[in-house]
Amino acid sequence: MNLHYPNGRKYSPLEINKGEITKSEKSGSFSNRGMTLEEDINITNLYYLEREMAVIHKKPTPVQIVQVDYPRRSAAVIKEAYFKQASTTDYNGVYKGKYIDFEAKETQNRTSFPLKNFHPHQIHHMKAILQHGGICFVILRFTAFEEVFFLEAKDLLTFWERMDNGGRKSITKIEIEQIAHIIPLGFQPRIDYISIIDKLYGLSSSCKPRKEGTL
Amino acid sequence: MNLHYPNGRKYSPLEINKGEITKSEKSGSFSNRGMTLEEDINITNLYYLEREMAVIHKKPTPVQIVQVDYPRRSAAVIKEAYFKQASTTDYNGVYKGKYIDFEAKETQNRTSFPLKNFHPHQIHHMKAILQHGGICFVILRFTAFEEVFFLEAKDLLTFWERMDNGGRKSITKIEIEQIAHIIPLGFQPRIDYISIIDKLYGLSSSCKPRKEGTL
Repeated sequence: MNLHYPNGRKYSPLEINKGEITKSEKSGSFSNRGMTLEEDINITNLYYLEREMAVIHKKPTPVQIVQVDYPRRSAAVIKEAYFKQASTTDYNGVYKGKYIDFEAKETQNRTSFPLKNFHPHQIHHMKAILQHGGICFVILRFTAFEEVFFLEAKDLLTFWERMDNGGRKSITKIEIEQIAHIIPLGFQPRIDYISIIDKLYGLSSSCKPRKEGTL
Repeated sequence: MNLHYPNGRKYSPLEINKGEITKSEKSGSFSNRGMTLEEDINITNLYYLEREMAVIHKKPTPVQIVQVDYPRRSAAVIKEAYFKQASTTDYNGVYKGKYIDFEAKETQNRTSFPLKNFHPHQIHHMKAILQHGGICFVILRFTAFEEVFFLEAKDLLTFWERMDNGGRKSITKIEIEQIAHIIPLGFQPRIDYISIIDKLYGLSSSCKPRKEGTL
């Protein structure tokens, strides 16, 4: 995850995500209603949580702490730290007993989605999740078109393999339109990805055996 | 989570958990083989991961970032940040398709486990996880005895309720011995909590419906 802040700016996160870092300063101007994909997903997750539909949270941004001071009678202050690359995906949680795990990325590219948006260790993590019967996917937004897609991890892995075998380093928008599932956008929930999970995996209240191939 | 570091000490995390913060400086001397409970669980999770038994990670420590500098030609430096209280539990992941969620705490107390080790919002989170069919529990270590217990979240919630109703603010060791499950300790895996999950929930490769009461 590529994070940027204006120097010395007082950091005040959206409370909706318990102080998670947002990227509005960076890409707000390119995303719908000035919200980044991350902000929209955080609000969507809060919607699911409050309505007791699912418990899905964004993981805290991993930080490598180098120096911490302990002023008397006040909280410890981290004086030197660095952003670390996430080793897993950003979002996970539970829906109807099943493990849900996904990554969300947006591109300003109009014709394809660059695979460099994902790190090899994230791909490795997705493979492991699928192997263990979790529901794993990526949410892709084409900011230029305000289109958001649900791409199953198994399909992302296929495109990643194509790249590894010398193929193109991106997924064309046409391929995404054919293989991925467009996510209905609304006010509440903003990005209703659970409707796609229901459609694809047909989860009932009691946990069903995994589908061949998909899980 | 109460984190403490020696002032200005260069922070070098155990790589086993992708740079997670450890508390060895604080409590290492009280825990088995000089390892904290967190370190033992991280090594256990790595063991499960490498043997493709489960994918369970510790979440990054939540940090409230206040100031970030961007030196030219080098990585962004966080100049001011503060430790934030975790809003969920520390560990989650997937085992045989099921969502696994737990918190790990140790006490030097010999007769009881103080409930102040848990935060109300963590309790709230555990309730939500159970409600959504996840497997949720706490791992409790009595450092004085080198004993580690697996207490189901539903049972922790009962003790929490007792406190809320004016009852004692801790769980007696005798109660834990009666209600919780002792976790076999070894070299590999260090703290084999999955053996307890298998015993309690009897997960097969395909995900079974949840048990009455437990989930």
